[in-house]
Amino acid sequence: MQNVPGLVVTGASGRMGQMLIRTIAASDKARLVGCLERSGHPWVGRDVGECMGGAALGVLVTDDPLEAFVQAQGVIDFTAPAATVEFAALAAQARAVHVIGTTGLDPVQIAAIEAAARHAVIVRAGNMSLGVNLLVRLTQKVAQALDADWDVEVVEAHHRMKVDAPSGTALMLGQAAANGRGVTLDSAMVSGRDGITGARERGTIGFSAIRGGDVVGEHDVIFAAEGERIVLRHLATDRAIFARGALRAALWGQDQKPGHYDMMDVLGI
Amino acid sequence: MQNVPGLVVTGASGRMGQMLIRTIAASDKARLVGCLERSGHPWVGRDVGECMGGAALGVLVTDDPLEAFVQAQGVIDFTAPAATVEFAALAAQARAVHVIGTTGLDPVQIAAIEAAARHAVIVRAGNMSLGVNLLVRLTQKVAQALDADWDVEVVEAHHRMKVDAPSGTALMLGQAAANGRGVTLDSAMVSGRDGITGARERGTIGFSAIRGGDVVGEHDVIFAAEGERIVLRHLATDRAIFARGALRAALWGQDQKPGHYDMMDVLGI
Amino acid sequence: MQNVPGLVVTGASGRMGQMLIRTIAASDKARLVGCLERSGHPWVGRDVGECMGGAALGVLVTDDPLEAFVQAQGVIDFTAPAATVEFAALAAQARAVHVIGTTGLDPVQIAAIEAAARHAVIVRAGNMSLGVNLLVRLTQKVAQALDADWDVEVVEAHHRMKVDAPSGTALMLGQAAANGRGVTLDSAMVSGRDGITGARERGTIGFSAIRGGDVVGEHDVIFAAEGERIVLRHLATDRAIFARGALRAALWGQDQKPGHYDMMDVLGI
Amino acid sequence: MQNVPGLVVTGASGRMGQMLIRTIAASDKARLVGCLERSGHPWVGRDVGECMGGAALGVLVTDDPLEAFVQAQGVIDFTAPAATVEFAALAAQARAVHVIGTTGLDPVQIAAIEAAARHAVIVRAGNMSLGVNLLVRLTQKVAQALDADWDVEVVEAHHRMKVDAPSGTALMLGQAAANGRGVTLDSAMVSGRDGITGARERGTIGFSAIRGGDVVGEHDVIFAAEGERIVLRHLATDRAIFARGALRAALWGQDQKPGHYDMMDVLGI
Repeated sequence: MQNVPGLVVTGASGRMGQMLIRTIAASDKARLVGCLERSGHPWVGRDVGECMGGAALGVLVTDDPLEAFVQAQGVIDFTAPAATVEFAALAAQARAVHVIGTTGLDPVQIAAIEAAARHAVIVRAGNMSLGVNLLVRLTQKVAQALDADWDVEVVEAHHRMKVDAPSGTALMLGQAAANGRGVTLDSAMVSGRDGITGARERGTIGFSAIRGGDVVGEHDVIFAAEGERIVLRHLATDRAIFARGALRAALWGQDQKPGHYDMMDVLGI
Repeated sequence: MQNVPGLVVTGASGRMGQMLIRTIAASDKARLVGCLERSGHPWVGRDVGECMGGAALGVLVTDDPLEAFVQAQGVIDFTAPAATVEFAALAAQARAVHVIGTTGLDPVQIAAIEAAARHAVIVRAGNMSLGVNLLVRLTQKVAQALDADWDVEVVEAHHRMKVDAPSGTALMLGQAAANGRGVTLDSAMVSGRDGITGARERGTIGFSAIRGGDVVGEHDVIFAAEGERIVLRHLATDRAIFARGALRAALWGQDQKPGHYDMMDVLGI
Repeated sequence: MQNVPGLVVTGASGRMGQMLIRTIAASDKARLVGCLERSGHPWVGRDVGECMGGAALGVLVTDDPLEAFVQAQGVIDFTAPAATVEFAALAAQARAVHVIGTTGLDPVQIAAIEAAARHAVIVRAGNMSLGVNLLVRLTQKVAQALDADWDVEVVEAHHRMKVDAPSGTALMLGQAAANGRGVTLDSAMVSGRDGITGARERGTIGFSAIRGGDVVGEHDVIFAAEGERIVLRHLATDRAIFARGALRAALWGQDQKPGHYDMMDVLGI
Repeated sequence: MQNVPGLVVTGASGRMGQMLIRTIAASDKARLVGCLERSGHPWVGRDVGECMGGAALGVLVTDDPLEAFVQAQGVIDFTAPAATVEFAALAAQARAVHVIGTTGLDPVQIAAIEAAARHAVIVRAGNMSLGVNLLVRLTQKVAQALDADWDVEVVEAHHRMKVDAPSGTALMLGQAAANGRGVTLDSAMVSGRDGITGARERGTIGFSAIRGGDVVGEHDVIFAAEGERIVLRHLATDRAIFARGALRAALWGQDQKPGHYDMMDVLGI
């Protein structure tokens, strides 16, 4: 266990932070060497396993990122844009791989991360699930291989509490289909068919959103032609997949040259 | 073969008429004894099998409904409202079961059919597929058995030429769910989710419409709760199922008392 | 909260026991009034919420069933056959509804439960999920309504650790289809097609078992005819549904006459 | 229309031959310039459209392959191995693209086709559907990208008359998954689970075969991990897709150098 990479989790007390901690603790490919929270948080100075209501893990929560990062080979970070920009600089300084699941960064913040990536490995993705990232890549490939005789429809299902439609992942998939076809999604997108719609317009990309129960997330990309269909489907049944994707990214990053990578690079497809 | 019911097909030259003729000719549970077309139609007086571009069937097309009906035990009729009302009276006079797949009848026309049904067996349905009718019935039963902790979603897929959404059958299914819950569909229906929708409102019935390729018709009724889902699904892959449903209705009607029935009665559920 | 039924959970420290406790604690339709463990278990005498690693629930674990049952309106019991037989007599004595999810009872044990059910309400089922029980009932109804032109196939998917195929629930579904058709499952069952099988024999009921990942449980009952299919599908994504089904049974039982019921009775279909 | 490639169909009177003729006649990307049947066949010398029971197409059926091929830019051939070997030599002589859907060629016959492919373009595939070929390629890519934490299952459904299980296409898909993983299918394949199977063995590739109704062909390749699944699905609903795939291959072949290609080359993936 001493030879596997040591990892730090930021935002340790959050829902995603705790899931990351459990995932690393359960893995034999990495070990947990640090947990970060903001100054003043009640967990600071205490054993993180006990804070989470379980057995001690032998790792105290700290509020000093650099102290934590210098002992680590990787940092996994699902926090907020401003913190992530700061962590990117410190992780680069510590030569630790920085895996970023934080969303909502603006162009200035992304530029700061690009700067850090000149000296260190950074992996950043809006969705860390291996399966979804693979599906995005497949969608682009298939859209490229097939012409507009194949109608593209993206169908997604999520739990009843979701407030927007289509899902961000559905839009990523639609974008990938548009890229594969060499069109813009804006010009091709048709979402929420209802009423007298007329026949389907050739080349459009349709979206449907199903809502109900506690569905974690299901996405279908349908390519429908005369007499046959291809469906690329992803089913997420446990939010832990996002933590496992981040762990895989941190391990993959150990052997890479400095740069700004995404999950496609991690998957190697 | 002499002991099986003899059937007449109206509107013999139409797409549905020809499908009915082929279905009856291929069955050993009924025999084709008459084919009807309007006066002046080029098929009148000719063998219907040859008119359809195949082998002779030994049945000449006629334009005299009563002459045709008196030799028959059943009439299958997918034509237009005015003709159907006329045929209902003549079929009753001939004591033949009248199976009506004609849609778009107004209340006056329906009243005329009710009148005919006092003296004869009439089976009338907007969709003659056994499977769809069974699904409608199941949907009502399930909606009755489950409370509003189970979110109802109706998802349908049809070919790219379909001009309206949701499909008529999807609306029948949604209506059945609303009936089962004791609410009106108007008050519960949500169709074509798109944008910032907010969380799903309890008790609503959602609709999604997928369009692509040459899909004949697929309908899912989803009941989604915490931790489990029930899905009732119908897949239509051949339009001949509507002809087979009509044939079954004609055979079932042979043993019934006069009355106005639907496919639910035929299925016995 | 004082007016909702008070419930006791047996086998409190087990995986299913803990899930039942959490489910009752989270519900406003019932309250937890007792938790049972065997004598000598370390939880006895302690607050059950704290034993489970969370906040106190104000209920101490006891090893005296009758003391627990007399304060309750219902007992939920997923333990072992011998214990369940004993609890059935005591619950009847206390006039508490006894919900039994225990499996593997032999005929003598079932007779003992029948005897207890002469004086009290007992609900017993091998699978407490509302959805699965509903699917069993629907399967029988549909098999009854459709003739052998509709081929029946039961397809199930479970996690990679499952050691038997087909699943017990798949067999229940196949049995329901056989009942609906008036045949025995033994004579109709075809499981695990492989190699040169010949054409499908009419009237058979086919079974397929998919294994992979951590799938909780998915069952499809397919009725496939020429040109159309009906699929009845159940998806379980969280084992908590079994606890919720048991809670529903306990609430339903409050208004019933003594008797031995199953989940079909609870669902009222 | 004079500038689009002229095509010859061999085995014109067969089920696949007629489907090819209708497909070419309906396309504006190619024109029908010849139809071949064996000497003595009643269609020889007659207009092929009339032989098929429809309107004249202006193309007489011939029994002289070379005469037909020299006027053509492509030959589409779903016949029998011996005829196909002969046609390959003649098509090469005529510098026409030869699209071969014939199956069951032995190694000597394949060597003869390889020889012809030194001078002409030959496209040969056991399944001409674009969708299935794309699915095979995707399956290999995904199996390569994912490790054995993802269990692979191939599930297929076909009509009740199919006599073997799993389907040839399912085996192609399983082979592609095995290739992607660098294992042999023989060592990894598990087909027709039934009884006490024990837990799923890591690295195996499972097969299930569903049979019923008139299903043309449905294939799912499932990759199931903890918490997520990817499903690659192909649905065939009309056998005409095989004709359309062959037409696409003939058009694609117009711009290629001599060689022996398959549908993967045609799709460019």
